[in-house]
Amino acid sequence: MTATLQLVLALALVILAAKAGGYAATRLHQPAVLGELLVGLLLGPSLVDMFHIGPFAGGHTDEIIYELAEVGVIFLMFVAGLEVDIQEMLKSGKVALFAGNLGVIVPLVFGTLVALMFGQELYPALFVGMILTATSVSISAQTLLELGVLKSKEGLALLGAAVVDDVVAILVLSVFLAITGTGDTARPVWLVVVLMVLFFVVAILFAARFFAPLTRFVDSLPISEGVLSFVIVVTLLFAWSAEVVGGVAAITGAFIAGVFFARTKFREEIENGMHTITYSFFVPIFLVSIGLRANIRDIDANGLVFLLALIVVAVLSKVLGSGVGARLGGFDNLGSFRVGLGMISRGEVGLIITTIGLNAGLVSSEEYSQVVIMVLVTTLLTPLLLRWAYSLTRRPTARAANTEIGGQ
Amino acid sequence: MTATLQLVLALALVILAAKAGGYAATRLHQPAVLGELLVGLLLGPSLVDMFHIGPFAGGHTDEIIYELAEVGVIFLMFVAGLEVDIQEMLKSGKVALFAGNLGVIVPLVFGTLVALMFGQELYPALFVGMILTATSVSISAQTLLELGVLKSKEGLALLGAAVVDDVVAILVLSVFLAITGTGDTARPVWLVVVLMVLFFVVAILFAARFFAPLTRFVDSLPISEGVLSFVIVVTLLFAWSAEVVGGVAAITGAFIAGVFFARTKFREEIENGMHTITYSFFVPIFLVSIGLRANIRDIDANGLVFLLALIVVAVLSKVLGSGVGARLGGFDNLGSFRVGLGMISRGEVGLIITTIGLNAGLVSSEEYSQVVIMVLVTTLLTPLLLRWAYSLTRRPTARAANTEIGGQ
Repeated sequence: MTATLQLVLALALVILAAKAGGYAATRLHQPAVLGELLVGLLLGPSLVDMFHIGPFAGGHTDEIIYELAEVGVIFLMFVAGLEVDIQEMLKSGKVALFAGNLGVIVPLVFGTLVALMFGQELYPALFVGMILTATSVSISAQTLLELGVLKSKEGLALLGAAVVDDVVAILVLSVFLAITGTGDTARPVWLVVVLMVLFFVVAILFAARFFAPLTRFVDSLPISEGVLSFVIVVTLLFAWSAEVVGGVAAITGAFIAGVFFARTKFREEIENGMHTITYSFFVPIFLVSIGLRANIRDIDANGLVFLLALIVVAVLSKVLGSGVGARLGGFDNLGSFRVGLGMISRGEVGLIITTIGLNAGLVSSEEYSQVVIMVLVTTLLTPLLLRWAYSLTRRPTARAANTEIGGQ
Repeated sequence: MTATLQLVLALALVILAAKAGGYAATRLHQPAVLGELLVGLLLGPSLVDMFHIGPFAGGHTDEIIYELAEVGVIFLMFVAGLEVDIQEMLKSGKVALFAGNLGVIVPLVFGTLVALMFGQELYPALFVGMILTATSVSISAQTLLELGVLKSKEGLALLGAAVVDDVVAILVLSVFLAITGTGDTARPVWLVVVLMVLFFVVAILFAARFFAPLTRFVDSLPISEGVLSFVIVVTLLFAWSAEVVGGVAAITGAFIAGVFFARTKFREEIENGMHTITYSFFVPIFLVSIGLRANIRDIDANGLVFLLALIVVAVLSKVLGSGVGARLGGFDNLGSFRVGLGMISRGEVGLIITTIGLNAGLVSSEEYSQVVIMVLVTTLLTPLLLRWAYSLTRRPTARAANTEIGGQ
């Protein structure tokens, strides 16, 4: 079978499995995202190992699926950005700053301490701490979308805190690499800061000033699906430049693009089209691929203990750090707890940092597998915990959360 | 730059270039598809060679783009199938049979004769003839969609003839491989016929019987973008089984899926969603990638003469064969001419046959490049010629073509 036919079959199976898993989870009153993640885990090397059996053996369809998943997470964060009202989000600026910063510092300190306890040296131990700093908000955003509360006060604070967290985590990593002289292409700290600020300023100014007139212009041209093509191109370019120019995560760029396209008069058309593209094709691939990449068989007894410690620290340090941050920012206890829970899930930024550590010799290959499992477990736990936290009710005096139905 | 960032940038550039090229062509009163193909040619190794310069050098982003293009052509043929009324199409059955069969026989004979004239031996010469047999109707379908005449009598005859042509071309190849004993996995002729018939019967019966109730069922479930995900999964599976089980082109399976989904009550929802996905993302990639794969610098003076002969035979033999076939089927001169022109473009089936010949030692690597260029030239010529043929008017007595606006 040719590579194309392998890909066609794999896409069909992955999307079918994702939707079936999501549906099963929904029937069990769980978020769909949980079912889609678990289906991926079952199809992966932990059980079925779909890419190494039958028609897929010997091909590299898995690589293409993983690349499409990366495009999927970019589109997902764009859609999350579309849902956000920037005015509302800025209101949560104080909470976002506190929750984001403490959500970096506490995991960094706790992660380092745990690694030191397991006998690691200072630099590798600090690296374990840094791996735990970066939240991946896409799973939380997806869960909040499903729950219809992404645009609530807590949802917006969470999204803001994740952006702050992303920026601070990258800054911490850059400082570490500069001080220790690790990493071949490490930029000096001042350059990291300058480029990051430059990216945010240019991206936001450009988006605020030019998205509306450019979209209107493209819409006036006789181009098939012109507006959506334009949105896709701009989103991909924002994602690319966020990482290449700004040094932050690609999803941060996609998120900014979404926030500002929501302010144009084409919001509804863009939302309909991108929702279709994202949820019928790319997001199922992204969610299943997370499970596909993990292998729970990789971990032996010793590794299991460290892994468990890693997971416990990953969960507790974010709940504590971001939760206390949100409380200091003015949220009530339940709201702070929900923000803390929403920050638990780790993802691509954590994996990117781990890869840098692997290349620099600060992270062993066994640790790499453990980090992947940790990412998966936090990703599995986050929707469960968030859903549970949203089933808790405030005392009657508290203001009800905005429950407008989101993208689901 | 990571593979993912390369892909993100490449996707943005390819989609942007495609839409810009399509718009430029539209401004010059040419079909958009022509501009998108030419932009691909300019970005490819013939001029810019984008995948071997700057950020893409050394990666394999090009492979992923090509695979996405293959998914794109499947979606494109699905959308073409959606546009088709099966009752109307069956009315053109006689024309389709004549035009399809003569559209295989004439290019086979002429192609073989020309190759013999250029000093090739019998088997390789016969293979040149076979390469010229298989029409790729996707470019013609796209052009007719843009012109708003896909659902005209001629458009339907063209689509039917292309399906017949696909089946007959594969049968001829199978007979040839069986008789000459070429090809490792060559199936015996009876098995080829049985599997082909089996695929068509099972696919059509399944689609006619189960598409409507299954789509209704999926629509009733709480699944995000459930109907569209279901349509995508089924289309991919039909495409896959067409080639793997039926031995015909994957696009034939996608086309059948489109024809039968159009008969469900979800037609409009499916059409809107698939149009968005296809035209904002996959089709631009498909059209640009055709040009990206060709290299006009590959051809030396001697090769140029054979290439020119190949192109002339490719064009004339289809116009003559399918045109005369349509005339025998009862079309008037202009209608027959248009059907003949619509059959000119070659594509993936021709390239698949060429690859089989390459592996069997019947096609040289130079010939392979020539075939790619021939495919590209016929693909460039077809929209130009079709557009010109639709600018010709019938005498007042002739019935006007159905000019309902199609997918553009």
